[in-house]
Amino acid sequence: MTLVREKRPLVHHITNYVTMNDCANITLCAGGTPVMGFSADDVKELAKLASSLVLNIGTPTDDIVDAMIAAGKAANDKGIPVILDPVGVGATAYRMNAVRKILSSVKISVIKGNPGEIGALAGIGRTMKGVDSEGIDGDPLTACASLSKELRTVVAMTGPVDIVTDGNRTMTINNGHAMMASVSGTGCMAASVIGCFASCTDDMLKASAAALAVFSIAGNKAAKRSKGPGTFMVNLKDEMAALTPNEVIPLANIRVV
Amino acid sequence: MTLVREKRPLVHHITNYVTMNDCANITLCAGGTPVMGFSADDVKELAKLASSLVLNIGTPTDDIVDAMIAAGKAANDKGIPVILDPVGVGATAYRMNAVRKILSSVKISVIKGNPGEIGALAGIGRTMKGVDSEGIDGDPLTACASLSKELRTVVAMTGPVDIVTDGNRTMTINNGHAMMASVSGTGCMAASVIGCFASCTDDMLKASAAALAVFSIAGNKAAKRSKGPGTFMVNLKDEMAALTPNEVIPLANIRVV
Amino acid sequence: MTLVREKRPLVHHITNYVTMNDCANITLCAGGTPVMGFSADDVKELAKLASSLVLNIGTPTDDIVDAMIAAGKAANDKGIPVILDPVGVGATAYRMNAVRKILSSVKISVIKGNPGEIGALAGIGRTMKGVDSEGIDGDPLTACASLSKELRTVVAMTGPVDIVTDGNRTMTINNGHAMMASVSGTGCMAASVIGCFASCTDDMLKASAAALAVFSIAGNKAAKRSKGPGTFMVNLKDEMAALTPNEVIPLANIRVV
Repeated sequence: MTLVREKRPLVHHITNYVTMNDCANITLCAGGTPVMGFSADDVKELAKLASSLVLNIGTPTDDIVDAMIAAGKAANDKGIPVILDPVGVGATAYRMNAVRKILSSVKISVIKGNPGEIGALAGIGRTMKGVDSEGIDGDPLTACASLSKELRTVVAMTGPVDIVTDGNRTMTINNGHAMMASVSGTGCMAASVIGCFASCTDDMLKASAAALAVFSIAGNKAAKRSKGPGTFMVNLKDEMAALTPNEVIPLANIRVV
Repeated sequence: MTLVREKRPLVHHITNYVTMNDCANITLCAGGTPVMGFSADDVKELAKLASSLVLNIGTPTDDIVDAMIAAGKAANDKGIPVILDPVGVGATAYRMNAVRKILSSVKISVIKGNPGEIGALAGIGRTMKGVDSEGIDGDPLTACASLSKELRTVVAMTGPVDIVTDGNRTMTINNGHAMMASVSGTGCMAASVIGCFASCTDDMLKASAAALAVFSIAGNKAAKRSKGPGTFMVNLKDEMAALTPNEVIPLANIRVV
Repeated sequence: MTLVREKRPLVHHITNYVTMNDCANITLCAGGTPVMGFSADDVKELAKLASSLVLNIGTPTDDIVDAMIAAGKAANDKGIPVILDPVGVGATAYRMNAVRKILSSVKISVIKGNPGEIGALAGIGRTMKGVDSEGIDGDPLTACASLSKELRTVVAMTGPVDIVTDGNRTMTINNGHAMMASVSGTGCMAASVIGCFASCTDDMLKASAAALAVFSIAGNKAAKRSKGPGTFMVNLKDEMAALTPNEVIPLANIRVV
């Protein structure tokens, strides 16, 4: 967290139109600098300037998927982490194909999804309802670890308790609040915060766990003083910007399982 | 309202880039679940999962209009309601042609617009100033009913007093507040709320009237405790999420005319 | 400011996806009416209705640049001012080429950028970090005046102290607050406010200086009562909408240099 604020990493986003403003602002609150672009030519250059790349398929089109692959390859060449948020991947074959295309061309450092999305990727998900989570069958810890090994990437599954695993090591983070699911965009913002943290270390597992803990602590604090989803989104940014490492350390409820 | 919160309908939006975040969040506040997509292939699948479809031409392109038609046809095949928000339709021939193309290919359940937009569709509008309303010539009740009969769809015209009609039955809703016109997006959000309510009944007239009443009551409550347009948009979401049927029933000022 | 609120100018935006909602709302708060469009056919018609045109390359694609040129030519034909916000122009060759294409086809009235962007255009910028400012080498007043003469346009460079120049006359505006740089979109919103003011006078220098002073005063007032970046963005809109000319005149710190 201190590292992010010292480094001020440039986090390149190719993300959905719905929540991109929140992603840009939470990146700033976390200590990073956002940049966004969608043109395949533009993104290749942006990836070279960036410290990490966040790909989010919330509003996918063929052009955007092509731009994601171009940016992802440039990021891989440079050696910066690539975070993938497979929004609604279980909802349509179009989105599943988009994720498959990305995974076959780009080395992904962290896949962050809700249980429905992670379950769909693991081939074990229930039918999804839009982009929200419908849960996962079987033991989620095993499912995440198995997917992580299969795709050779860290898997971060958000939910009431977040799970982060690299296939061998697994951690849970229990700092969230139910209000985080009452607004659109907290999942996308979590990926942005992971993008900030991942740019400051080689350990994608710890980066993901720390990012989710910090973001959830901010969310929890914001929820406690919010009247509803409108004020929550505003307070979430204030709390994220105000959090200090000294405050986070005793609150972070991260367990190695 | 209770039905929406019990059903949690998936409301598929193909809407403008400017206000889509507000549309997603007000859908959640109303009790629904939003999903958005723009690729013609993606939207066909999303429409099959959805309980209603909201089309909004606020930032139209050829690709988006094609996607709207593809999604609209899929929605018609499935038998779910389609809400059309013809933003700025009187402002450019491009938008008028987009609406004509949609109307000729897709059966629309509800058209929601401001007086300028409804007037333009009825061929009786004054020159529009951008996407805002410039009023309507003649008697608005007659104009709405006539347009409704012509297009065989419910017409919902928002304004200081909202008018909803299916050509035979006409209702007015008088619950709004002037501050609702001081921000960008309340009209778009109203269409999202209609999308939620329309998915829970076959009576599009009542669904539209109830949705506008509930949304306006939330807007009125929010306006009374807001300092300006910034806080109003935040409070509007809080109030929408907090509203209960018991609170709405005595406040709803719906009249059959 | 009084003129803007009396005229309610229609400000046509072709702007980036990230901050366009904030641009639309700050235009309303300033007294204008926003309209947005991206299709080359649609924008030609919108430009004819509009009182000014704001072009922002924050998320450029080939189609959007083509639409900007089509709208810009229509605006030039009509004689309305065109404001250009060259977001991240120094970051990628793609963006620099986009700006060059626009400048070679469209007469621009005001270029508004941060020091990194203005420096890049002047060929004297340091390497940029995304879309944020990295400063400018040499004397900024001279650099701005030189660029203004070269491009025959007013140059407005935002920063802790804003600089506005037409090559001969130069003014500084010292009303901002550091919190304005803590959120995404204040630069884009400043261009929208310039778009409002530029539509009410032929003097682009004074319009730009007045717009930046008014916007900065609103920002300063908002910052003083905000806990962080979330509440700041909300309060900024409230303050902008509530500002009165009587309040602005004694606060405006504009100096002719």
